[in-house]
Amino acid sequence: METLRVALGSRSYPVHIGAGILDDGGLYRAHLAARRAAVVTDHVVAPLYLERVRRALGAAGAQAVEVVVQAGESAKAWQPLEGVFDALLAARCGRDTLVVALGGGVIGDLAGFAAAVYQRGVPYLQLPTTLLAQVDSSVGGKTAINHPRGKNMIGAFHQPCAVIADVGTLETLPARELRAGLAEVIKHGLIRDAAFLQWLEANLDRLLARDPAALAHAVRRSVEIKARVVEADEREAGERALLNFGHSFGHAIEAAAGYGAWLHGEAVAAGMVMAAELSARTGSLAAADVQRVRALLARAGLPVEGPPVPAERLLELMQVDKKASGGRPRFIVLEQIGRATVRADLEERAVRAAIEACAPRIAAAH
Amino acid sequence: METLRVALGSRSYPVHIGAGILDDGGLYRAHLAARRAAVVTDHVVAPLYLERVRRALGAAGAQAVEVVVQAGESAKAWQPLEGVFDALLAARCGRDTLVVALGGGVIGDLAGFAAAVYQRGVPYLQLPTTLLAQVDSSVGGKTAINHPRGKNMIGAFHQPCAVIADVGTLETLPARELRAGLAEVIKHGLIRDAAFLQWLEANLDRLLARDPAALAHAVRRSVEIKARVVEADEREAGERALLNFGHSFGHAIEAAAGYGAWLHGEAVAAGMVMAAELSARTGSLAAADVQRVRALLARAGLPVEGPPVPAERLLELMQVDKKASGGRPRFIVLEQIGRATVRADLEERAVRAAIEACAPRIAAAH
Repeated sequence: METLRVALGSRSYPVHIGAGILDDGGLYRAHLAARRAAVVTDHVVAPLYLERVRRALGAAGAQAVEVVVQAGESAKAWQPLEGVFDALLAARCGRDTLVVALGGGVIGDLAGFAAAVYQRGVPYLQLPTTLLAQVDSSVGGKTAINHPRGKNMIGAFHQPCAVIADVGTLETLPARELRAGLAEVIKHGLIRDAAFLQWLEANLDRLLARDPAALAHAVRRSVEIKARVVEADEREAGERALLNFGHSFGHAIEAAAGYGAWLHGEAVAAGMVMAAELSARTGSLAAADVQRVRALLARAGLPVEGPPVPAERLLELMQVDKKASGGRPRFIVLEQIGRATVRADLEERAVRAAIEACAPRIAAAH
Repeated sequence: METLRVALGSRSYPVHIGAGILDDGGLYRAHLAARRAAVVTDHVVAPLYLERVRRALGAAGAQAVEVVVQAGESAKAWQPLEGVFDALLAARCGRDTLVVALGGGVIGDLAGFAAAVYQRGVPYLQLPTTLLAQVDSSVGGKTAINHPRGKNMIGAFHQPCAVIADVGTLETLPARELRAGLAEVIKHGLIRDAAFLQWLEANLDRLLARDPAALAHAVRRSVEIKARVVEADEREAGERALLNFGHSFGHAIEAAAGYGAWLHGEAVAAGMVMAAELSARTGSLAAADVQRVRALLARAGLPVEGPPVPAERLLELMQVDKKASGGRPRFIVLEQIGRATVRADLEERAVRAAIEACAPRIAAAH
């Protein structure tokens, strides 16, 4: 097991990475103020890992309330959130209850936001069981649910008290979700670490074959990169926005396709190709590097084209994206592989052209 | 105009107190990052003050989205909250939007919580128009909505960027609400300032007659007391709990009677009598001082008896109150007039006896 640290003053916390660590009661004990825990998970993860977590919590001396929601993006909504509150209140959980998020990014967001606002805030533990959650969403304290008018519109910055990333859980991950997680891994290389991107190009096949050592390295390096960015800018006043590379496009793709139709990582993959196209059109990214981005994502089995909707629709959806500032959308672009920057001065024309460069072939044929 | 300051590091803010200051565009200007504001108010306050606030915001250069909800405790619920999100999203309000809470404690709680979680947090301004909101709820950053299983169960600590307390607005306040606000004023004297309590006993008639100088003094001294307590313990880890004197009982009374049947201040008044009875039974408060509490509240026209429900029901409701710790309810008791303390060691029997000492006469007659 390796332990990294996210250094945020009084809100600092450890990220434990290793195989089989889900069972380690000692990792839970430190975070139990009382003997009360509430495990939030979904109906796919529950049969795989809930019993192990229940036992580990028991070994740590805690009794757990359990809340199992339907798997999928639809869980990031008011009704499932209300279900968590109901379960906690029915069990008379007080402010010293530890919420445990067992699952992927959706569960982390739902349970994390529930913890952020239940009785004005209780602590929570992230137990990410997907690659996407391990390399990205479990670290950094962003929590949210969706709104019919936009993704992640209702949420909070609420740091977990620890992250327990058991890479052993990636063995049961559907291939499609493994690939979706790789999108965020690749993103970390693209925005901050050209050497890591090269390593990914060289080791992609090992990752797709779930080589444990390769996965552990990808998780560790991703968490390191993300932790450094979050430490510099916890509440996304500046640098943290770089982590949103591809996400303005990606969120619009998710919304246009209907939440849940595309996995978040899939939408981010196509969104990163659009963002790379935009970078080449409005900045210094070489055309060959756009192809490099496209090729690596395609090799990972990820979409490199947008959904079959008019560019206009994506542009419209991006207007209300919360990264808009004073009504003018900001975009993250690459200056080169390994270095990203924020731009608020881009013409809609360039954005539209970047989207159109990624139009699905079926639409392009019309 | 007088300006007090709530000193909370990077979250510090001014509290302006004066007559007619609602119209002062300069007080708004400092808090407008962009030219966007969203005023949240209710259908009773809107016809009285919305036009004035709209003009002041206009003078400060801002365009305002307006959200008018139904007046009353029922606005502290998911549906009205969702209505605020809808309006903000429909108007494409970004993270630089200033939310303005124009109204009483309910509006402050609703708009403040909306600001706390809209796009993971936007700034908000408190414009309290009731005595209760001016002396209590607008200061300190507690925001929340209710849950069918308990009051204020879903919320956040989110400090406003400023409070503009226009005591001129108290002229239009219904007498019942003026009295309800006095309950929290009296609370501040009881827990922290015996001299202020004496002043209240001597000046109660002036306050009930809405003497502007007397009201301004009561607001200023209350805000000072509350600000000092909040500064020492922003997130209610300890001392801030003292502000909840009478509130464990009060919240149970509100829930038992059905939210909205009793005003918050009315429930707190009866709750403070119960808490005083408890203080005499389990601590050092003199029986004569319990009578002093009872007499002052009665003179203010506030209830000093609980609702016609069995003591059992109030006890049950207090179990899930969020001030419970490890399942054991904590109570704020008076050691003497002007000095309160937290107790977590009280027997249910003593709590029951305190409730029964305040049973309504109609129930006692059975």
